Amino acid sequence: MGKVHEATVSAPVNIAVIKYWGKRDSALILPTNSSLSVTLSQDHLSTRTTIRASPDFPADRLWLNGVEEDISASKRLVNSITTARKLREALEEKQRKDGIPAESVVPLSKWSIHVCSENNFPTAAGLASSASGYAALVSALGALYDLPQSTSELSRVARVGSGSACRSMFGGFVAWQAGVADDGNDSLAVQVANRQHWPELQALILVASDRKKAISSTAGMQTTVETSSLFAERVRTVVPQRMEAMKTAIANRDFENFAEITMRDSNQFHAVCLDTYPPISYMNDTSRAIVGLIHAFNAARGRIAAAYTYDAGPNAVIYALKDDMRDLVELFTFCFPREESMLADAFYPDPFGVFALPEEAGQRLTDPAVARLADTAGKYPAGSVRRIIHTEVGDGPRILPASQSLLSDVGMPKRARE
Amino acid sequence: MGKVHEATVSAPVNIAVIKYWGKRDSALILPTNSSLSVTLSQDHLSTRTTIRASPDFPADRLWLNGVEEDISASKRLVNSITTARKLREALEEKQRKDGIPAESVVPLSKWSIHVCSENNFPTAAGLASSASGYAALVSALGALYDLPQSTSELSRVARVGSGSACRSMFGGFVAWQAGVADDGNDSLAVQVANRQHWPELQALILVASDRKKAISSTAGMQTTVETSSLFAERVRTVVPQRMEAMKTAIANRDFENFAEITMRDSNQFHAVCLDTYPPISYMNDTSRAIVGLIHAFNAARGRIAAAYTYDAGPNAVIYALKDDMRDLVELFTFCFPREESMLADAFYPDPFGVFALPEEAGQRLTDPAVARLADTAGKYPAGSVRRIIHTEVGDGPRILPASQSLLSDVGMPKRARE
Repeated sequence: MGKVHEATVSAPVNIAVIKYWGKRDSALILPTNSSLSVTLSQDHLSTRTTIRASPDFPADRLWLNGVEEDISASKRLVNSITTARKLREALEEKQRKDGIPAESVVPLSKWSIHVCSENNFPTAAGLASSASGYAALVSALGALYDLPQSTSELSRVARVGSGSACRSMFGGFVAWQAGVADDGNDSLAVQVANRQHWPELQALILVASDRKKAISSTAGMQTTVETSSLFAERVRTVVPQRMEAMKTAIANRDFENFAEITMRDSNQFHAVCLDTYPPISYMNDTSRAIVGLIHAFNAARGRIAAAYTYDAGPNAVIYALKDDMRDLVELFTFCFPREESMLADAFYPDPFGVFALPEEAGQRLTDPAVARLADTAGKYPAGSVRRIIHTEVGDGPRILPASQSLLSDVGMPKRARE
Repeated sequence: MGKVHEATVSAPVNIAVIKYWGKRDSALILPTNSSLSVTLSQDHLSTRTTIRASPDFPADRLWLNGVEEDISASKRLVNSITTARKLREALEEKQRKDGIPAESVVPLSKWSIHVCSENNFPTAAGLASSASGYAALVSALGALYDLPQSTSELSRVARVGSGSACRSMFGGFVAWQAGVADDGNDSLAVQVANRQHWPELQALILVASDRKKAISSTAGMQTTVETSSLFAERVRTVVPQRMEAMKTAIANRDFENFAEITMRDSNQFHAVCLDTYPPISYMNDTSRAIVGLIHAFNAARGRIAAAYTYDAGPNAVIYALKDDMRDLVELFTFCFPREESMLADAFYPDPFGVFALPEEAGQRLTDPAVARLADTAGKYPAGSVRRIIHTEVGDGPRILPASQSLLSDVGMPKRARE
């Protein structure tokens, strides 16, 4: 057996504070407006992907969480892989032109690949994994193929897989510039600030139970573009202003402005969904209750101390500074009691020890003002929030050592589900 | 005892299909945009009001559903009564100028009044009564004072009490023209089509249980004007187009266009509420479920056979033609079972006999396509819908005979609560 050509990477989830919704080109995934996100820590949420290229593989194959998927069934997967292969092909071409002997140029672009990908968070968490998934895929291809392109350039390849995946190519605070070019050349991610820029910023993910099946965001957003009479105004006027204001807020570590813009933009995204025909609604009564709690919490604090944001589902992501997080965790565990059937680790990690003992969880309310607020709000039905994840701003994709590979010696998944 | 100067009227509820939301003048209640509504039958929903003027009354007094209210505490009540009195004063002035002997001009404008008002629907129905209430008040004052003003002119007086009340001054289909004058002279209601124009059109009111207390629409709409970045576009572009399209649909009895505009405008109203900061949400999971059921029902029918619309609360009003109503009633009683504690008449009236027997209600699904749809949708928690009212397009305020008076011989409420 010759040299193994393989790369293993992990890539993070990102949560937008200025929302992406609407494409100007569906094939290339070119958005109608720029967006901006915070990359979350891979300690709690990430996708790990191993890719191996081998002249012995008869075809490209892919396993997601242990289950083999048909690559050719996904145009987006094919697009991403094909685009990365072309970049590799160009590199091999250049190596040959540069006088490197043909036998030293490894023809990786000609070989089939095996892709094995796993999320470290359960699908049951209700969190979209396409952003971290495509960022991991493209980062692994970049590493495997030794591509010379910058991360921003590679983010274009992630973009053709899943729009918001381009933002998961960086850590910290990331803008996806909509761009204007027809070929999407200028539609890519850039880092606005790195992870170390604002270490106090933390996030809480509240996974809400929902009776309804989610509407595909791909289908939903194009219906919005076609039918909402308010959407054009958002794209033309509102988002450009907010992008600038948000960058300034981040640069200044100005939490109140960061939070207000985040909440307003989440609300407006859901407003244009509702203005779609037929209307799209992702938020449910639990989501609406969390919105109310956050505004009440901010009123109790006398400042904007927390922000909510919702993507294409009922789950809330709460941004707050470290010093306010304990009270928020206590408030949520009080108002959203666990259901008995829920796993002991449904709420994790638990730096404050608030989740630790089910019989005590939700009984401690350290701050008297928060206790009064919790008392007024009351308790929601047990299990309305079925998971809480306490996390923080994280770094971009990481290249992992070969020991972390998901593939066996022969290039098959180490773990596979029947 | 001399001649009794008294009038008793009843006035209807109206449900907007193009929504009023936002004022350009809060004192005069001048709206940012025109709106259009359907007046509902007084057989099922109405306010009855008796007003008597007497030189023996030491002060103005008012009883609402048997409970005395402090008139002076409500600027809107004072405004409406004062405006009507001024019109009466002008009439008395004119009568004297016209040579009618002073002793024959009854100085009603100088006398105090007793106002007694009752809704024929329980407050528990969760339906706003301010529109029918102010329309009844102003109609009764118009009759008592023998005012020569046209109904449109009097609708201005109802408007200063409660904006949408001006639309309850007419039966059938009614437009409230926003107007442009600073004094509100051209901000009034006009009848677009009368009750007889479209007799097949019916309405179903679904009263949804809600945990949340409603936000005052008066406070809410001004926050929208001030904070929503999408609201101006609605006012400037969307509503003027929809007003014209809606009038055409009504003129042509074109249910599909009527229904689609109704749904789109309801959705957009709630969209701008959500785009408000802090956001306002009136619809809950039950409301969202009903939206889904209506779109599924229309899909099953292969045409737009029903429309939903929501005001400042979670209750749905469904518009449909008579021939589609039975299936809708069956669908809703199937999907929203009654709670045991609910009153036997919670669903009324019952022309199809669907509500009649609790143990049978919701079991009959006549149409196979609707039965399939109901099966897919499943049953929502019992009591999610706690009242259904089946009604139709109705007439405008009615002047009732003296026998229907709510006041006793001495001008006090016949029925009063402790």
